Amino acid sequence: MSNTNTSFVLQKKDEISFEQRDMPTAGPGEVIVNIKATGICGSDVHYWTHGSIGHFICKAPMVLGHESAGIVSSLGPGVTSLQVGDAVALEPGVPCRNCDMCKIGKYNLCPDMKFAATPPYDGTLCNYYKHAADFCYKLPQGISLEEGAMMEPLSVGIHAARRGNVKLGDKVFVFGAGAIGLLTAAAAKAAGASHVTIADISESKLDFAKTYSADKTILLTKKRSEGQESNDFARQQAEEIMAEHGVEPANVVFDCTGAEVCVQTSVFLAKNNGCIVLVGMGASVQSLSVADISAREIDVRGVMRYCNTYPTAIEMLASGKIDVKALITHRYQFKDALKAFQHVKEARQGTIKVVILNE
Amino acid sequence: MSNTNTSFVLQKKDEISFEQRDMPTAGPGEVIVNIKATGICGSDVHYWTHGSIGHFICKAPMVLGHESAGIVSSLGPGVTSLQVGDAVALEPGVPCRNCDMCKIGKYNLCPDMKFAATPPYDGTLCNYYKHAADFCYKLPQGISLEEGAMMEPLSVGIHAARRGNVKLGDKVFVFGAGAIGLLTAAAAKAAGASHVTIADISESKLDFAKTYSADKTILLTKKRSEGQESNDFARQQAEEIMAEHGVEPANVVFDCTGAEVCVQTSVFLAKNNGCIVLVGMGASVQSLSVADISAREIDVRGVMRYCNTYPTAIEMLASGKIDVKALITHRYQFKDALKAFQHVKEARQGTIKVVILNE
Amino acid sequence: MSNTNTSFVLQKKDEISFEQRDMPTAGPGEVIVNIKATGICGSDVHYWTHGSIGHFICKAPMVLGHESAGIVSSLGPGVTSLQVGDAVALEPGVPCRNCDMCKIGKYNLCPDMKFAATPPYDGTLCNYYKHAADFCYKLPQGISLEEGAMMEPLSVGIHAARRGNVKLGDKVFVFGAGAIGLLTAAAAKAAGASHVTIADISESKLDFAKTYSADKTILLTKKRSEGQESNDFARQQAEEIMAEHGVEPANVVFDCTGAEVCVQTSVFLAKNNGCIVLVGMGASVQSLSVADISAREIDVRGVMRYCNTYPTAIEMLASGKIDVKALITHRYQFKDALKAFQHVKEARQGTIKVVILNE
Amino acid sequence: MSNTNTSFVLQKKDEISFEQRDMPTAGPGEVIVNIKATGICGSDVHYWTHGSIGHFICKAPMVLGHESAGIVSSLGPGVTSLQVGDAVALEPGVPCRNCDMCKIGKYNLCPDMKFAATPPYDGTLCNYYKHAADFCYKLPQGISLEEGAMMEPLSVGIHAARRGNVKLGDKVFVFGAGAIGLLTAAAAKAAGASHVTIADISESKLDFAKTYSADKTILLTKKRSEGQESNDFARQQAEEIMAEHGVEPANVVFDCTGAEVCVQTSVFLAKNNGCIVLVGMGASVQSLSVADISAREIDVRGVMRYCNTYPTAIEMLASGKIDVKALITHRYQFKDALKAFQHVKEARQGTIKVVILNE
Repeated sequence: MSNTNTSFVLQKKDEISFEQRDMPTAGPGEVIVNIKATGICGSDVHYWTHGSIGHFICKAPMVLGHESAGIVSSLGPGVTSLQVGDAVALEPGVPCRNCDMCKIGKYNLCPDMKFAATPPYDGTLCNYYKHAADFCYKLPQGISLEEGAMMEPLSVGIHAARRGNVKLGDKVFVFGAGAIGLLTAAAAKAAGASHVTIADISESKLDFAKTYSADKTILLTKKRSEGQESNDFARQQAEEIMAEHGVEPANVVFDCTGAEVCVQTSVFLAKNNGCIVLVGMGASVQSLSVADISAREIDVRGVMRYCNTYPTAIEMLASGKIDVKALITHRYQFKDALKAFQHVKEARQGTIKVVILNE
Repeated sequence: MSNTNTSFVLQKKDEISFEQRDMPTAGPGEVIVNIKATGICGSDVHYWTHGSIGHFICKAPMVLGHESAGIVSSLGPGVTSLQVGDAVALEPGVPCRNCDMCKIGKYNLCPDMKFAATPPYDGTLCNYYKHAADFCYKLPQGISLEEGAMMEPLSVGIHAARRGNVKLGDKVFVFGAGAIGLLTAAAAKAAGASHVTIADISESKLDFAKTYSADKTILLTKKRSEGQESNDFARQQAEEIMAEHGVEPANVVFDCTGAEVCVQTSVFLAKNNGCIVLVGMGASVQSLSVADISAREIDVRGVMRYCNTYPTAIEMLASGKIDVKALITHRYQFKDALKAFQHVKEARQGTIKVVILNE
Repeated sequence: MSNTNTSFVLQKKDEISFEQRDMPTAGPGEVIVNIKATGICGSDVHYWTHGSIGHFICKAPMVLGHESAGIVSSLGPGVTSLQVGDAVALEPGVPCRNCDMCKIGKYNLCPDMKFAATPPYDGTLCNYYKHAADFCYKLPQGISLEEGAMMEPLSVGIHAARRGNVKLGDKVFVFGAGAIGLLTAAAAKAAGASHVTIADISESKLDFAKTYSADKTILLTKKRSEGQESNDFARQQAEEIMAEHGVEPANVVFDCTGAEVCVQTSVFLAKNNGCIVLVGMGASVQSLSVADISAREIDVRGVMRYCNTYPTAIEMLASGKIDVKALITHRYQFKDALKAFQHVKEARQGTIKVVILNE
Repeated sequence: MSNTNTSFVLQKKDEISFEQRDMPTAGPGEVIVNIKATGICGSDVHYWTHGSIGHFICKAPMVLGHESAGIVSSLGPGVTSLQVGDAVALEPGVPCRNCDMCKIGKYNLCPDMKFAATPPYDGTLCNYYKHAADFCYKLPQGISLEEGAMMEPLSVGIHAARRGNVKLGDKVFVFGAGAIGLLTAAAAKAAGASHVTIADISESKLDFAKTYSADKTILLTKKRSEGQESNDFARQQAEEIMAEHGVEPANVVFDCTGAEVCVQTSVFLAKNNGCIVLVGMGASVQSLSVADISAREIDVRGVMRYCNTYPTAIEMLASGKIDVKALITHRYQFKDALKAFQHVKEARQGTIKVVILNE
């Protein structure tokens, strides 16, 4: 272990550099984690290239990264749930624990959430990260640290599956074959879905999806005719998907793209009494067929990160019900973190998840 | 009781007339009901003035009316649940009883629903109406037939409150102070809501609402600035409503108007983890702030009529928890049904519900 | 305000005395509350007369009392949600905030709960009580401190109604017409129940119930025949209740007595698909007709105190949906606390709730 | 196909014989099914050996059997969902479709349920069986008729898993390694359970369970000490199971034995906030630790057959998520049905499910 706290810092839009930060000290209920593996999320890259996401704006230098696992290196006062040397996955957001959202168990909606690498809070791409002990989840034997880092995107999938209330025998449709789409599909199958279709515009991503969590894949190629209203196109696209690919109306449709056309099409793919879960983030305002939502009692449900997912995510891995290793297509050393970010930014073909490893 | 079956028939768009129809005969499991009271719904008037609603198009003459109560006049083979002379409220839609929606108890989503006064099925504005015995609900002593007719719009309110999952202590916001808005508010209060705000653009409707189910009323007067994006206006309107009227974010927002601006504003009035219920029908396609729906995990839930509401509606009346009599502002004799329809069409001030009474 | 911290201390079984305890100091996130009103609960008296409840055993002197409200007298570091002088109701249990039960919002099941007047934690019958700021709920204007103290038993009722999932139009049956039975009935009605029957063996309690939350009351007088199996008696008693009193099978039955015969009878009073909520505490082991529970898919649900109820309880009061003042039948000054305890111990007729007031 | 309707009839207790019954004719909405495969259920044997189950008493000769699949041989008027020649699984109970239980989708609780081989309704062990078309579920290609017959016990497992609300990552404990225990375990795993332990007193059954749906098996060998209260023994047994076998408290415990000691032990194996599902049938009255049920807010939920499970069961098979073929350990020709019944009655070692095949 190094004794310095090298950190990968977004100085401002488009400018990242390594910085030596102070070694952190664990307060009561906290631990210091020697970070060993960190996945790169699209949001990390977005902060780098845009300096902001929505109303979250980087006004000061900020350490990037929030999909991490590592080894506990010291314990703050009162910590008994962990020991030095424990391998842990880090749930990167710590809520206030006092507000009504925290108390009812929906702490992901806590307005005072402190989330790694969401301004103004530093992220986890450093050597030593201070964290609340109860948001560090011990990894069972046989689970590697890079798999531990994947508990974060898997949490998104698990939370999405819960929001969609996926049940035994459900037919599921997923837009988007990136890491989140794949993991949402995997969580949906583990939760009982009997059939999952994944649609995307990338043939190579669908090729991977076929080997992972998709029972069927659909390459989206249709374009809206000139002058066609977007929801009319969506209805037509949905009807063609069902007719040409033998896809039945879905109990749950997950949009993991944020693309308006996918969200719009979701409405027409959903079965009566079905639901649509908005996992992806795209244009803030989107137009939807509320007539269909009403007439067929469809629920449209938003998703904000996750809560109470880490123990489940680890269980899924430990039981072999979900595999995350297959998704890690590329690895970089921490010193090459910038290269890793460039890799993700370029969206190189064949890339699902890039992980940065600290020695 | 008359021995003829005078019926109030929409011959085609804009043309209604009385017709003598054949006396119906009750088949197995059916009864004949001598209709005594029928409320007029906006949809009845819409079929009259437009000849269609959405993809439901009147292609042949159709009896209007679906909010009815009456007296059982004869029983078909095998009917034991009712007796001749029973006063009953009619749930106007009879589903197929065989499909998956029927079997899971969501029969309002049955694709083979036969619903009174929805083409091609005749409605209840006649003397004798044939109906499935189990969709006729006996009225307890003390409940009048005109109150029985009100079980239909109350059912809409009850179903909406259920879809919104209104719970003890919830803050509720309702757009629209017509009969449906008022009854939805009443159902929400009966289901535990501690505070209900009703907003409308009509001061006289709000005056009535204050005496009925509203704890607070808000007159909507703001207009969108030129060039302002509609969801930006909605956000601003919601913020002003909360700031100026001391309204807290709502656990459940019911839109009973169908107006896009109201649905849009609903998103910003909903609390984190809250929900929006689409009760009204308006433009088919509407634009919504999906960014807010996601970030605050709001549910948007459609509503299609109702199911399993009549016993509850009658319970609410019998227990005095909900009063429907106050909503009946005008009464017409059956022979004056056209005048009643004209009354509703003109949307005369001070009108909540017009009921047609058969002698 | 007094400057000393006179406390009402259970020294050991059967021995209570006033003691001067140190004035507490508020730590981070804590406040000091000058206690003004405290209701006496059966459990307080039980600790006095037995020295224990189940496996909770008083091994050291313990301040009694846990149904309290007061005035905030000082703030610990970081507290911004309250101000000195605020009138607050105290939710008497503070959970660990870190375990899985806390995180999913069921903090009442936290194994590290620190609950006032449950050994070894001191209760609230003192002048100054230190408490977590976020478990002190500001009372709105118009709510008195003695009503504030009643938020605790009302919380039991609200939590029970939630566990029973009481819905619009439900028929409810309650065993026990004491404070908890009455408040459970009131919460059930506020949550939508259309009809509540309360049964008890005390005619005077039922007389009060009639004026409060009961639509119907039933005096239980039947005795088991010699040699009759207790569940056979229960079935017979249930059938007689339904036949003689015109009571319909209940969607939800609340047992607020703990008496085995009541719990047994509950099974036979519950409707198909209904549920039984165990609110009262009695014999640890009880025999039930599991054949009926199975054949009619009845749920039996345990209740452990409450969680997330205080804001709702205060809402119910502020909105006038539930009245608690009527239940306070007797008041004592703090200096006469022992007399108050004797009053409750003697179970004097006409007593619902005894409240101790600090000057 | 035979042109006669040979039927396997329980004449009275202990007396079964083949009888030629009339060929049935399909009425409106009905079909005739040429029965091809029928599993034997414990209840069939119990009617044979006892003449009754609970208050269901055989007062007249009754055809046995209710776990069947076959080929549609003729269609009644109005049937369009099936064609002659279709392979179908039969859901053996047809409810009234009119009562409140039917309308809310809990038709298994319909008081007028007509269930095959439950007196006085004839069962399916015959050549030609008349059935409601919508309770005949078409088997997809690749699913055999004997697998179709297994949709009935699988339905029990699926319904149990639903009643237990098994979720992603749940730890599950099952008492009983017979067909129902195994299928309940399989359904629980398919519904997201990450770990299932099955306990039984039969080592050979557990050996099979290890190869099927159990992650861990436990042989129950402990006996109650003389004079030990049964629930004290249950608590001790549960503690030993957890300590010795490394079993964690279960989110859901399924009792598929009906044995009181297993139900009692379930309470102590359930996690806080967990639930116990009563799948097995045993003594009508059983004693339970209600103190634990309350203090840890455990739900005890009854199970009555199933509803809305057949489409899901077939989906599970078609998707490969659940295998039922492995459970069919023995097959008999219809003419040897009595031998098949004797086989089951003798509970021969190595037997999971015996199926009778009609040529």
